[in-house]
Amino acid sequence: MSEPQLAALYLDYIACLNRRDWDALGQWVADDVVHNGHRLGLGGYRAMLEQDVLQIPDLHFDVQQLVVDRHHVAARLEFDCTPKGVFMGLQVNGRRIAFHEHVFYAFRDDRIKEVWSVIDKAAIQAQL
Amino acid sequence: MSEPQLAALYLDYIACLNRRDWDALGQWVADDVVHNGHRLGLGGYRAMLEQDVLQIPDLHFDVQQLVVDRHHVAARLEFDCTPKGVFMGLQVNGRRIAFHEHVFYAFRDDRIKEVWSVIDKAAIQAQL
Repeated sequence: MSEPQLAALYLDYIACLNRRDWDALGQWVADDVVHNGHRLGLGGYRAMLEQDVLQIPDLHFDVQQLVVDRHHVAARLEFDCTPKGVFMGLQVNGRRIAFHEHVFYAFRDDRIKEVWSVIDKAAIQAQL
Repeated sequence: MSEPQLAALYLDYIACLNRRDWDALGQWVADDVVHNGHRLGLGGYRAMLEQDVLQIPDLHFDVQQLVVDRHHVAARLEFDCTPKGVFMGLQVNGRRIAFHEHVFYAFRDDRIKEVWSVIDKAAIQAQL
């Protein structure tokens, strides 16, 4: 898959998340996917996303930057949302916050096999 | 500049940081460089790095992942170090911690013109 094709595939994955189309997730995510060193598998990955949306009903993935090679995607994602209760150990309680996630993905056979994600917790704390 | 050439240039920049060769920094960093939305300029960028090393004498940049296109680099950097005193608002006080930085760079004329960095503060907190 060429770089532009992988970028397009990734944007399709993000669109899937934004429309909460969990049943389609397996089109982009491998059965044995690993997230931040934890082998969640597709079911665990879906559960993580469903939990995210339960806590942040207005969660929307906005791709600000994308760097792509033949087997990897690096994305700077922007969020502007209102998490309920405690988020990342912080008392957000429905306040509106904006923050970024910087996330690397490795692909195998056009599916995400591993994810390394860092969320800008310091930026969230600075807004509370 | 091709992707492999930009990757090599970036690794040279990291080697420059690891040998504290601040006088050479301008080979890789633009005079008007912007860091996380702040226009530091080369002087301010150097001051930031010098301050980092003052606080973390054993700071070493270890590139774990690199995704490169013709004008951008995304890097997952790993640190295993002992910051003095308060680091990112946390009482580290010389304890040994390991954490990652996910950082995006935009290049212009083979120099870094803008940097977007997120450090995994949550991972540091979990170690204290």
